[in-house]
Amino acid sequence: MLDGKHILTSRRGTRRQPDASRDAILQAALAEFAQEGLAGARVDAIAASAGVNKALLYYYFHDKETLYGAVLDRFFVGLTERLMHELDGVAPLGERLLRYTCAQFDCVAESPHHARLFQGEMTNAGRGGSPHLTRIAERYIRPLAMRVTELLHQGISTGEFREVDPIQFAPSIAAINVHYFVIAPVTRVLFGRDPFAPEAIRQRRAAVLNFVAAALFTDREAGIRLAAEIALEKNQEPQSDPTPDSQSGGGGGS
Amino acid sequence: MLDGKHILTSRRGTRRQPDASRDAILQAALAEFAQEGLAGARVDAIAASAGVNKALLYYYFHDKETLYGAVLDRFFVGLTERLMHELDGVAPLGERLLRYTCAQFDCVAESPHHARLFQGEMTNAGRGGSPHLTRIAERYIRPLAMRVTELLHQGISTGEFREVDPIQFAPSIAAINVHYFVIAPVTRVLFGRDPFAPEAIRQRRAAVLNFVAAALFTDREAGIRLAAEIALEKNQEPQSDPTPDSQSGGGGGS
Repeated sequence: MLDGKHILTSRRGTRRQPDASRDAILQAALAEFAQEGLAGARVDAIAASAGVNKALLYYYFHDKETLYGAVLDRFFVGLTERLMHELDGVAPLGERLLRYTCAQFDCVAESPHHARLFQGEMTNAGRGGSPHLTRIAERYIRPLAMRVTELLHQGISTGEFREVDPIQFAPSIAAINVHYFVIAPVTRVLFGRDPFAPEAIRQRRAAVLNFVAAALFTDREAGIRLAAEIALEKNQEPQSDPTPDSQSGGGGGS
Repeated sequence: MLDGKHILTSRRGTRRQPDASRDAILQAALAEFAQEGLAGARVDAIAASAGVNKALLYYYFHDKETLYGAVLDRFFVGLTERLMHELDGVAPLGERLLRYTCAQFDCVAESPHHARLFQGEMTNAGRGGSPHLTRIAERYIRPLAMRVTELLHQGISTGEFREVDPIQFAPSIAAINVHYFVIAPVTRVLFGRDPFAPEAIRQRRAAVLNFVAAALFTDREAGIRLAAEIALEKNQEPQSDPTPDSQSGGGGGS
């Protein structure tokens, strides 16, 4: 965690302005990379959109590839904070696992651009072209994966969870969470509706929690009820920022 | 189905040679596109690797984009055939649903390059750049999605399945099936092992079937037992072609 955070803050100045410029660059870069891809993205356009000159951008981020990596790190720092917070809570194991599932869904729902960029990195890595994947896997995904599998092992040993294979189950949760957003273009064609509309997001979140609870809890009915409660509670929260990706920075008020 | 097939066969000659050349081009194109992406792929390299001259390639496929589309169609024609075969079987509903799940997993496991290309199309579509996505969604994914949701509705009405939302549950099955292959580069980093090794594939297939059965069947224990039987039966089959993607053509002995 601290390592990841360090990356994002090491070049920050001590006054407000540098932070604001840095954030503006990352925000503009996210939009440009999401729209144009890494190869097609133009540093000029990012600097202009962020309202900074190109020299400052290069001062902070060195080159386009480094800037791209910083955009990815920014997402994973926030994701790790939110998910670890749920996993390390004091609630019963099953509730922590479902809240983790819910938070993972919400992180992707709020940052579909980031999720799409990372998806692209995995595609690139398949042909040997991602300089960021190893860092992200080691720094963010490994500690999260270890903590989730640990929690699953605990729940199995207490009898709260079925005897699943935690190494298989943990990525299956991520699968159900992420896939919905990946296939959004197909959903638009098939159903002619916006998969990011608030009501669609609510339905999907509830379905994910229901699916995971039904597959995992030894007392399936109790798990399903708890999943429904968490989904309902989430629906009653004030709507988060209606512009996805606009607030997906380092999380927790830093 | 027939439409999709038509695309692949309309320009076939009546003798063996044209078919073989066409298949060789598609096979070479798959490897090149998977390695280089659509933008980076070179038609020269594809023609050379297929052992045909470029004029013949253009005769069959017009241009690189059309060739790319034909590579995608080839995968989806085979996928549709195999999955419809399982869905339309005479076995009880639950068994058909699990065999469909298993076949979907196997199609992706045997054709990871195809799956990665389609994943890339969804990324591109997110920024408005996939001319193939609408065709594939309408021609292949829609009929499959309709048939699976129909089968889920049936199972719910007979009481064999829990009251899930079929529109949500069907893509969740695909999610668990596909995600494992998408995150293969991360798995390599985290566990230092090959996610495509036969034993890893067997474990994942069993885990997917177990997850779906546990989440869906009203009689969960019976569902889990059936899932284990199908996984075991599959393991005892002679190993399929050890070179993934080498046989992922139009399916069923055409």
